[in-house]
Amino acid sequence: MTPIHPFDRALRLDVLDADTRRGRTHPEWANMVGPFGGITTAILLRAIETHPGCIGEPLAVTINFAGPVADGDFDIRLRTPRTNRSSQHWIAELSQGGDVKTTATAVFGIRRDTWADTEARPPSAPPPEQLAPGGGPEIVVAWARLYDMRFAEGAFPGPGAQPSPASEIALWVRDRAQRPVDYPALAALCDVFYPRVFQRRGGVVPVGTISMTTYFHADQQELDALGGDFVLACAHADRFTHGYSDQSAQVWSRHGVLLASTHQIVYFKA
Amino acid sequence: MTPIHPFDRALRLDVLDADTRRGRTHPEWANMVGPFGGITTAILLRAIETHPGCIGEPLAVTINFAGPVADGDFDIRLRTPRTNRSSQHWIAELSQGGDVKTTATAVFGIRRDTWADTEARPPSAPPPEQLAPGGGPEIVVAWARLYDMRFAEGAFPGPGAQPSPASEIALWVRDRAQRPVDYPALAALCDVFYPRVFQRRGGVVPVGTISMTTYFHADQQELDALGGDFVLACAHADRFTHGYSDQSAQVWSRHGVLLASTHQIVYFKA
Repeated sequence: MTPIHPFDRALRLDVLDADTRRGRTHPEWANMVGPFGGITTAILLRAIETHPGCIGEPLAVTINFAGPVADGDFDIRLRTPRTNRSSQHWIAELSQGGDVKTTATAVFGIRRDTWADTEARPPSAPPPEQLAPGGGPEIVVAWARLYDMRFAEGAFPGPGAQPSPASEIALWVRDRAQRPVDYPALAALCDVFYPRVFQRRGGVVPVGTISMTTYFHADQQELDALGGDFVLACAHADRFTHGYSDQSAQVWSRHGVLLASTHQIVYFKA
Repeated sequence: MTPIHPFDRALRLDVLDADTRRGRTHPEWANMVGPFGGITTAILLRAIETHPGCIGEPLAVTINFAGPVADGDFDIRLRTPRTNRSSQHWIAELSQGGDVKTTATAVFGIRRDTWADTEARPPSAPPPEQLAPGGGPEIVVAWARLYDMRFAEGAFPGPGAQPSPASEIALWVRDRAQRPVDYPALAALCDVFYPRVFQRRGGVVPVGTISMTTYFHADQQELDALGGDFVLACAHADRFTHGYSDQSAQVWSRHGVLLASTHQIVYFKA
């Protein structure tokens, strides 16, 4: 019997009633405090896309990390405030013992053939086969060990690291077992960047993502073509001020397909 | 008696009960369909910031335009799923006759002195005094006539316009009556860009913002220093595909302060 992949194990949800699901944390997805934000986003997206009333594919999701998720069970409550002909709006709340830990809104929609163009360009980076594995946050957080990360720019600032004058980061990353990328997995890949303030300050400081928004550009065919291959993930911050900073990021296929763009605002102490 | 400014008129809300407010649309804020998204965002932000339980200043807001707001009254229902020591999470829903038209999540928080840096740089543009007023969407939508827009790049594609190979746009913009910029006004300024697909296609096509997220970098002192002056607003799209495109934008003060960064996903037919 093939053991279940850790990503699929984390996304297993029990149906408590028509609009409530129960999941649980898993130690292999642990972050510095609570679970990796990317797995929480993936779980919420999975809860929505497997709801019998769901139409279309994910277009946008915003996750608000309201409080730390404790080890153990959590409940997800789903609502559809509005369903249109070709789009659907969702609100999800993840709670533990009645305390809300995460809120989310998501928009799903039907993709149609239209005029198309990609204006953005991927950063230049050697192919992943020419880069050494490692250099990521696997030295401090468990979840990063589930990925094969290869840094073209901005490796994790370990002991003796210096502050960096810029926050740009670019890495190739794939699931270590090359599990095929679906929308939940793409959502998780959008959160693989260790905090930009670590790079700027040259080390670890107290930090937490407050809110994160991801726009899914890839259609199902583009995900099928990607399979479990490396994606090129790049990110930067525009401004750090008064204990908060933004981050904007893109996730590219090896063939120059912009799969997702994603933005977040982060709390820090420095 | 000084007449009330159209922005303040639009933000007038009646208190129906502890967590419910009633507002109404105003013809001067009309967009092609329903009201200008920026004024809806401003109204929701105002509803939250004037709630007696609100703490801190706006850090992030995500608005999902679920359905068109019809002319007339609307009700806003507010909830605080979580309040932390220095941050607070909100969910707001705007409805008309029981139909949800807009959903929003917002994070407010307390700003503290920390290490700070701005990495982004404003686009180069002549000062607003050297640019001619006009060139914006005021030829097709009422709300744009409430602003003084001066285009450095990407004027509205009027009759005879050609498709453009790029979606970059940069304009100076201020409230025509120079009403001082507060957080709701900054949120509205984040949505002044006519759709990027118009620029690429060289004309008007069916379009609508689906979801929009704004990160507020400016603190109150920076807003006070800005007053009613011009801001430099710039935007671009990364990818147009299958009927959807993203937009990323920044709003800068004349003195190079990054006041806000903002992102949206847009539906289009082309």
